[in-house]
Amino acid sequence: MSGNTTSQHISKQFDNELEHIRTRVLSMGGLVEQQLTNALRALTEANIELGQSVIDEEIKVNTLEVAIDEECTRILARRQPAAGDLRLLVAVAKTITDLERVGDEAEKIAKMAIHLAGKQGPRSYYIGINAMGIHVRKMLHGSLDAFARMDSKAAVEVAGKEPESDEQYVAILRQLITYMMEDPRSITSSLDAVWVARAMERIGDHARNICESVIYFVEGKDVRHISIEQMEREVGAK
Amino acid sequence: MSGNTTSQHISKQFDNELEHIRTRVLSMGGLVEQQLTNALRALTEANIELGQSVIDEEIKVNTLEVAIDEECTRILARRQPAAGDLRLLVAVAKTITDLERVGDEAEKIAKMAIHLAGKQGPRSYYIGINAMGIHVRKMLHGSLDAFARMDSKAAVEVAGKEPESDEQYVAILRQLITYMMEDPRSITSSLDAVWVARAMERIGDHARNICESVIYFVEGKDVRHISIEQMEREVGAK
Repeated sequence: MSGNTTSQHISKQFDNELEHIRTRVLSMGGLVEQQLTNALRALTEANIELGQSVIDEEIKVNTLEVAIDEECTRILARRQPAAGDLRLLVAVAKTITDLERVGDEAEKIAKMAIHLAGKQGPRSYYIGINAMGIHVRKMLHGSLDAFARMDSKAAVEVAGKEPESDEQYVAILRQLITYMMEDPRSITSSLDAVWVARAMERIGDHARNICESVIYFVEGKDVRHISIEQMEREVGAK
Repeated sequence: MSGNTTSQHISKQFDNELEHIRTRVLSMGGLVEQQLTNALRALTEANIELGQSVIDEEIKVNTLEVAIDEECTRILARRQPAAGDLRLLVAVAKTITDLERVGDEAEKIAKMAIHLAGKQGPRSYYIGINAMGIHVRKMLHGSLDAFARMDSKAAVEVAGKEPESDEQYVAILRQLITYMMEDPRSITSSLDAVWVARAMERIGDHARNICESVIYFVEGKDVRHISIEQMEREVGAK
């Protein structure tokens, strides 16, 4: 871990513990990213097997969350950390909750991919959905990157991309409503597509949450429920 | 606080701090419950003003979450709690996150209530939506009650009601799809109703999460990602 906080520790063992938990969060992040990538591929390629593999792997994400959460609580109890170390553990606890939820959303996308794979119908709205999928995957990747480097400026930048995913969601929804009105037989499968877009929007939210945890750790400030502009000021003002 | 954990504290001041944070969580819970009640009333009574008041009050919920979260971190840093006290603070941190999200969902319901208030159309599906609203509000109330009494058996019972809200959601969705197919002009407003049902389903999820935090505190066991049957065994086996 870069930064001044842990380098001042007398206990080398404690440093190792913090480093270990950070590494585990990043491997959990890698797994969740892979789940999302596979879910998106399953959707665009109508690949039922790949979709099923995402569903099968979901348990690994859940298991990791519970294990890291336990490790967090154990360190809290044994080491009684203060200041930056305490904030790191809080940021870790929040981040794994978000990652677990991204995993849930990836699983939902995979289920919808399987659902949609067998169906016919114009796939024009897929273009919007693919673009949105690429956008939120980038956001997730960026948030994990900011976490790995504990870079609050990068975190603000990634968080600032969330409004775009909201706009994409609204545009897709509008397109799907038009489509459902034109062809009511498509309502069921269009709703599946709505859920996919909704899941992606939530992944964007979670990526933003992870960024907020990074900012909380680095800056010691709670930046939830504030605008991106305020966030930039908080980080810039450091 | 009943139980053996805090009664053994040498520091009376620490007891007071834990009691204080518990009280604050319960007032936040009361506020969120009120928000949900008002959002549901705004929906059934097509009451735009009441809906708007839910939106206006949302900031109070967010502010409380941030304040309690800070208090939690401060106690963690100063008191270096172990065992039950540490679990209490972890349960508090998780519970307020869930409560804040219930507040978000109540706000969404209020927005949809305003949206739907001006529209005409058969309200037959409202019966299902009302029943679901009553169900998840009861779940939320039950989860806060279990938290107030730190009663893990009550928590398991409330968590066991979540599958019912999932079933209600699926039934409402099916009804709305039929309705959209019969009258494509209703698609936009029907989708609003879908979002309402979706928001309610998520409130049920959060109530279950709160129950899991109560069980974690009382039993010292992480019961996420397991079935209700396993949960009952964990609590019964104590």
